[in-house]
Amino acid sequence: MSDTPCPSTGGHPSEIAAAAAQLLGSLRAAPPLTHCITNAVVTGFTANVLLALGAAPAMVDIVDEAGVFAGAASGLLINLGTPVPEQRAASLEAAAGACAAGTPWVLDPVAIGALPVRTRLAGELVALRPTAIRGNASEILALAGFGAGGRGVDATDTPDAAADAARALAGRWGSTVAVSGEVDLITDGRRVVRIANGDPLLTRVTGGGCALGAVMAAFLGAARDSAFDVLTAVAAATLVYTVAAEHAATRAQGPGSFAVELLDALDAIGPDDILAAARVEQVEL
Amino acid sequence: MSDTPCPSTGGHPSEIAAAAAQLLGSLRAAPPLTHCITNAVVTGFTANVLLALGAAPAMVDIVDEAGVFAGAASGLLINLGTPVPEQRAASLEAAAGACAAGTPWVLDPVAIGALPVRTRLAGELVALRPTAIRGNASEILALAGFGAGGRGVDATDTPDAAADAARALAGRWGSTVAVSGEVDLITDGRRVVRIANGDPLLTRVTGGGCALGAVMAAFLGAARDSAFDVLTAVAAATLVYTVAAEHAATRAQGPGSFAVELLDALDAIGPDDILAAARVEQVEL
Amino acid sequence: MSDTPCPSTGGHPSEIAAAAAQLLGSLRAAPPLTHCITNAVVTGFTANVLLALGAAPAMVDIVDEAGVFAGAASGLLINLGTPVPEQRAASLEAAAGACAAGTPWVLDPVAIGALPVRTRLAGELVALRPTAIRGNASEILALAGFGAGGRGVDATDTPDAAADAARALAGRWGSTVAVSGEVDLITDGRRVVRIANGDPLLTRVTGGGCALGAVMAAFLGAARDSAFDVLTAVAAATLVYTVAAEHAATRAQGPGSFAVELLDALDAIGPDDILAAARVEQVEL
Repeated sequence: MSDTPCPSTGGHPSEIAAAAAQLLGSLRAAPPLTHCITNAVVTGFTANVLLALGAAPAMVDIVDEAGVFAGAASGLLINLGTPVPEQRAASLEAAAGACAAGTPWVLDPVAIGALPVRTRLAGELVALRPTAIRGNASEILALAGFGAGGRGVDATDTPDAAADAARALAGRWGSTVAVSGEVDLITDGRRVVRIANGDPLLTRVTGGGCALGAVMAAFLGAARDSAFDVLTAVAAATLVYTVAAEHAATRAQGPGSFAVELLDALDAIGPDDILAAARVEQVEL
Repeated sequence: MSDTPCPSTGGHPSEIAAAAAQLLGSLRAAPPLTHCITNAVVTGFTANVLLALGAAPAMVDIVDEAGVFAGAASGLLINLGTPVPEQRAASLEAAAGACAAGTPWVLDPVAIGALPVRTRLAGELVALRPTAIRGNASEILALAGFGAGGRGVDATDTPDAAADAARALAGRWGSTVAVSGEVDLITDGRRVVRIANGDPLLTRVTGGGCALGAVMAAFLGAARDSAFDVLTAVAAATLVYTVAAEHAATRAQGPGSFAVELLDALDAIGPDDILAAARVEQVEL
Repeated sequence: MSDTPCPSTGGHPSEIAAAAAQLLGSLRAAPPLTHCITNAVVTGFTANVLLALGAAPAMVDIVDEAGVFAGAASGLLINLGTPVPEQRAASLEAAAGACAAGTPWVLDPVAIGALPVRTRLAGELVALRPTAIRGNASEILALAGFGAGGRGVDATDTPDAAADAARALAGRWGSTVAVSGEVDLITDGRRVVRIANGDPLLTRVTGGGCALGAVMAAFLGAARDSAFDVLTAVAAATLVYTVAAEHAATRAQGPGSFAVELLDALDAIGPDDILAAARVEQVEL
């Protein structure tokens, strides 16, 4: 990660930072009820990330509750990290409930490609047209049918290597697609935003990526009654989260203290921090 | 939270603090085996809270083990935060095992009211007469049939708003009822204890409330062979936990470090800390 | 734990330390994909321990994925802490997949003896001849049929009290057996290694023992293409983990900060730290 901003080759990167600052304020003023169906490994950390940020998490992942709750929530995350049968059924129920109610929702297709059960489930879910899709490059390549996926939760490709796959997914399902990596890439098929904030320590803590999907769901919830579109809300979530990670990294001694400092930083971060640190570029395709 | 003690309008508040100090010593001298059936989000944090305090946690939540284990444990918590089918069956088995063996048990009806599956389960469990019931005001109102419950795990009402519901529950099922909030309210239907200790950071960490239910189960276990009654044990648990939270808050930089400091404080806290910080009032009804 | 090395009564303890230092370097140079099927309480902490150390964790615990993944992984842990039905089936599938592919795997029979479901499952799994078995003394006694097991996850016996049981298990199933305690005991039935490193705070954090099983799976993965045998890899994992715990304990204020410092220490620890701190003895039987 360089110390200088990305060259701004088009679009309005400063508008993303301004939107992120404004949406962060909206989120704290009216905490979005953020419904998470996520994996057992990161569920506690994800709830803590949302609480630290100022959102209201609710981990409702059982059949006959997930659908009704998705309809009432401000935003929904479906993360496929540990998709036990109950959660698979609850995910489909929740996605349907979100679609029916207009609740924005995020799909995180963790480790698809090599693992058959979640790969099939991701195919069913993506056909329900998630508002946003978040993954590493390997997962986005696999979801778009461009590759076989990674060996687990690690990206083995860079976000730019998945740019075509991300655009194809966005075009096919009408989703905004976010590819995590050293420079995050976000596209709605028409525009591409690149965000160069963050810190490698995010890859040394379990849930470093998964929790970002929940933050996206929270920002989509906060943006529902605003003028900001989905691409902007997803980019804003990424920017706030990765700038907080930079603050945390300056205080951390290693991955253990980084996770603690990240929560403190998400709590402490303010609009001016976002505006001062943003390294964003936006390109029209 | 004020800096001065609650006015003592009746009863014997100093007896609660003295009992808490004594029970804390008993707990550490003979760690109660504390059986927890709790939600996936907070299960690790809950075990760590019990270990830090000096209790012996055991998270046994499967069918054909939960019942026998509840009979052998010193205390049991049943928390309905993520009630997958296996856990629902194990909860009923454990409650029956606890009742048969005389093991004191705590019911935490997380987010009932709006969510149908757990609401039905809470109705079945409360009819088995839990030793104690812990929840926020919305949950206690819903369990007593006084309201529809909150939108999730947040209390949308104050504990005093649930005082009548708490008394009604206590009267109907013979349970001691604890309502968490800025001032915690605990009643057995005849007496009301209010505890003004704690810190708002407890609401910014997932499991801040859920872990208190486990601490109550541990204190009920420690009190089994003592002269202290259920109301006193539940109040003692609340007092020790919320005083530790105050210690932690003075050292924390935000919600991430608060969770770490809370565990360190639960380990370090001693009888004198409890006696010095208690803000308790007790009223006979 | 004494400040002086164990008396070296035979064998080549310094070789264990040298092997640990070398395997730690191998692990970081080529992070072993470490497949964990573990309990819900510690799954996040376990993944963070592996990430901090430098390994690549993957928590794949569902039917129709666990078997294929075990075949592709470098090492596998099966921990029976919360064995829900889906995980029981996935565990058997994974063990079969590991055996077929030659993936080394570790069995951690948490709390067997008193609890019937996991005791039966442990019996089925051990018959598949795990590469290594890790437990406290009570669990090893129970698995060998020498006792009824503990009351939960606490060891109620010392490792040396389980030495005969460990040797019997090793002889019967061809497994290396590691018994955790103040002085860890590791045997392949022919040799016994004792490691006196560690800190009592490891017993005050949930997952302190469970995560060691995952570290063993990672070291077995790192050792696959080396000249080091299973006993050496298991001892190396124990040594690295317990020396890191000693570093963490010097910086911790209590169990909460200890868990954070342990992750930072696992990240920071280097070969020289291992060589300087090792307190190992090895005996030929």
